[in-house]
Amino acid sequence: MTVSTALLTDHYELTMLQAALRSGEARRRCVFEAFARRLPDGRRYGVLGGTGRFLEALETFRFGDDELRFLRDTRVVDAETVAWLEGYRFSGQVSGYAEGECYFPGSPVLVVESSFAEGVVLETLALSILNHDTAIASAASRMTSAAGDRPCIEMGSRRTHEEAAVAAARAAYVAGFEATSNLEAGRRHGVPTTGTAAHAFTLLYDSEREAFTAQVESLGRGTTLLVDTYDVRTAVDLALEIAGPELGAVRLDSGDLLIQATEVRHQLDAAGNHDTKIIVTSDLDEYAIAGLAAGPVSGYGVGTALVTGSGAPTASMVYKLVQREDASGRLAPVAKKSKDKTSVGGRKWALRRRSPEGVAQAEVIGIGEHPVDDGDDRPLMVELVRDGDVVDHQDIHEARARHAASRDELPRAARQLSRGEPVIPTVYEQEHA
Amino acid sequence: MTVSTALLTDHYELTMLQAALRSGEARRRCVFEAFARRLPDGRRYGVLGGTGRFLEALETFRFGDDELRFLRDTRVVDAETVAWLEGYRFSGQVSGYAEGECYFPGSPVLVVESSFAEGVVLETLALSILNHDTAIASAASRMTSAAGDRPCIEMGSRRTHEEAAVAAARAAYVAGFEATSNLEAGRRHGVPTTGTAAHAFTLLYDSEREAFTAQVESLGRGTTLLVDTYDVRTAVDLALEIAGPELGAVRLDSGDLLIQATEVRHQLDAAGNHDTKIIVTSDLDEYAIAGLAAGPVSGYGVGTALVTGSGAPTASMVYKLVQREDASGRLAPVAKKSKDKTSVGGRKWALRRRSPEGVAQAEVIGIGEHPVDDGDDRPLMVELVRDGDVVDHQDIHEARARHAASRDELPRAARQLSRGEPVIPTVYEQEHA
Repeated sequence: MTVSTALLTDHYELTMLQAALRSGEARRRCVFEAFARRLPDGRRYGVLGGTGRFLEALETFRFGDDELRFLRDTRVVDAETVAWLEGYRFSGQVSGYAEGECYFPGSPVLVVESSFAEGVVLETLALSILNHDTAIASAASRMTSAAGDRPCIEMGSRRTHEEAAVAAARAAYVAGFEATSNLEAGRRHGVPTTGTAAHAFTLLYDSEREAFTAQVESLGRGTTLLVDTYDVRTAVDLALEIAGPELGAVRLDSGDLLIQATEVRHQLDAAGNHDTKIIVTSDLDEYAIAGLAAGPVSGYGVGTALVTGSGAPTASMVYKLVQREDASGRLAPVAKKSKDKTSVGGRKWALRRRSPEGVAQAEVIGIGEHPVDDGDDRPLMVELVRDGDVVDHQDIHEARARHAASRDELPRAARQLSRGEPVIPTVYEQEHA
Repeated sequence: MTVSTALLTDHYELTMLQAALRSGEARRRCVFEAFARRLPDGRRYGVLGGTGRFLEALETFRFGDDELRFLRDTRVVDAETVAWLEGYRFSGQVSGYAEGECYFPGSPVLVVESSFAEGVVLETLALSILNHDTAIASAASRMTSAAGDRPCIEMGSRRTHEEAAVAAARAAYVAGFEATSNLEAGRRHGVPTTGTAAHAFTLLYDSEREAFTAQVESLGRGTTLLVDTYDVRTAVDLALEIAGPELGAVRLDSGDLLIQATEVRHQLDAAGNHDTKIIVTSDLDEYAIAGLAAGPVSGYGVGTALVTGSGAPTASMVYKLVQREDASGRLAPVAKKSKDKTSVGGRKWALRRRSPEGVAQAEVIGIGEHPVDDGDDRPLMVELVRDGDVVDHQDIHEARARHAASRDELPRAARQLSRGEPVIPTVYEQEHA
């Protein structure tokens, strides 16, 4: 993380700001909205991630000496704009869906109300965080859904940008992963961390026996031994001999995991090691996890597929101006008219329509006054920033519980991994009288 | 970027370290190698990215108070290991391919020589950086290749993690992009930045006329006006009326870009604006860029496809122990024997075999003594770190020139976008006598 997040921003935001400051329209009250026009191809639901990180980033969105010097030296904007940025502090309102909430096409997941000037410069930062973390959380939720009661462990740091890795571990945790291998995610966000051993560790020693002995002596019999560096059967025998009945777990990282896990389970059970776990890794995704459901697997380590969003590495959210003050001072909805990228103007509210049994039936989005709560429906918008101050930091443990509840509320078809339509439709309601 | 990069690391690296410190094997001299077993599916060549960022990250790989406190409080490792980490400073050697160089399956792109202890903890950090930046550089190179002499501008920040965005802009520049929209990439890495305007800017005003007038008055007639918020034809007429013959460029961000660019070109030319450029954006990838080659397009703004590696968001590089000191003090090659993930043990050298005409013919990788240079072949390994000190920081402007030269040297089939085999084979040479 940079000390300042202010330049994690597109050039054009500042040049637009300059032009609008000069013409005077920069002061107009505006509403910007982040939403996704669609879910990734074939997905039944999405999971909002990153809201908490955005709120943190908003608090360090300040143009300091380094940032201002860069803008001056490279003449990105004129002196008046640099002076305005020097005093930048967001003073508006932010609301949106709570982190971990399921979302659907058109869900207004983040709504920023402020002057044009204050809101326009947040576009890239808000989208970067939401698009990345939502992509990861959405993929992660399918994996934890496929894994059922078995734990998923996030191990993908090495397959993505080093800072994206920390955010991915956090997003995966929100979507139900038990732990991560990423230590910085532990330090920064409080995600539980865990680990096993690499092939390099076994290869370091003159024999597998020496490697396993060293690991057990240092880390205890409850450790997880990696058993596929040479021959799996031999390695499991060795693990049993060295760690005995208290052997915590073995890890399989190659080959046909279903067959191997079954063989290893027999081998462990024959030795009486019924409590020794089998952790599998090796290019798992939600489909592979589902395919191992019938196998004697205790937990899944997931890497590449998790951190790359399992085929959907970005959530395609956009940040659009949906309402602004006009010359007469009246707030008016706005939307561009491009043929293939329409937006719905106006400030939105949203609720999840539920059956009396509590099953989600529709994502209801409206403009204008929020309808009176009828008991079954669940309002989705929460206040996040009031007059520039963050009022809800979106604790990740709460977000994790929220996600579990939100997913449980969806129709059962949400759990299907096959490609299909969003599991509930998005319905736009007419403005209430 | 974190102040310290030390915890951008997997949990197991530190527990392996603990076990190896205790048993004594942590002191063994080791060689770790980063390489990719394959290119992304169907790609003809890969482009190494991130080496310079890894060298920077290595210099801040220090366990400070925050990092040590976390390790102590969470008991990731024991007190002896924490004490060892407190004094950590890499003192070994690093060599590898220079940044921007093309690579192929098995290319030893990064080689780390040190004690096991010093080298094992760098695994995740090295791979995170190389896998991300290489994925982006590899995709970017196909785009700049497809674009020919027309500039590509990186505009994908909003579609990826906010720090990955900065690295992506850097990697794209190395692979031939002209500029980026990301301001932090300008400040931190010296990548040229640029930008146009968003639909929000036009919508802010009571009319498109007022918006264009404000932009031209503030940013000059050479600015780029976004012309597809309402009706393109009307917007171009307005742009011509307001900015006149000096209008810099117009941007198209929706619809059929080939048809629209052709229509807009006619409209501009009819007004005598032969020098006004047409910039196109809207979900471009290398295929769309190639498809626009025949159209009157002046430049391409590329977003999502660039920052997600155009279908290959990670480079699948691994970091393997390939050689280590044995009990007798002799350096011995090592490799695991897993059926589906074999590695080649031993410390490698590499060169690009070239025809007398200078066309690349093979990636030649060998173990042992480097062969005598025969004039046509090009040695690929460069020294990066000597006794812990970075000796070559991999300047990105040099890396950019290097990439252009390396790509030019490949057979012409490298430019084909269709799926196929690597454009040159990887050949392993026997050890020289």
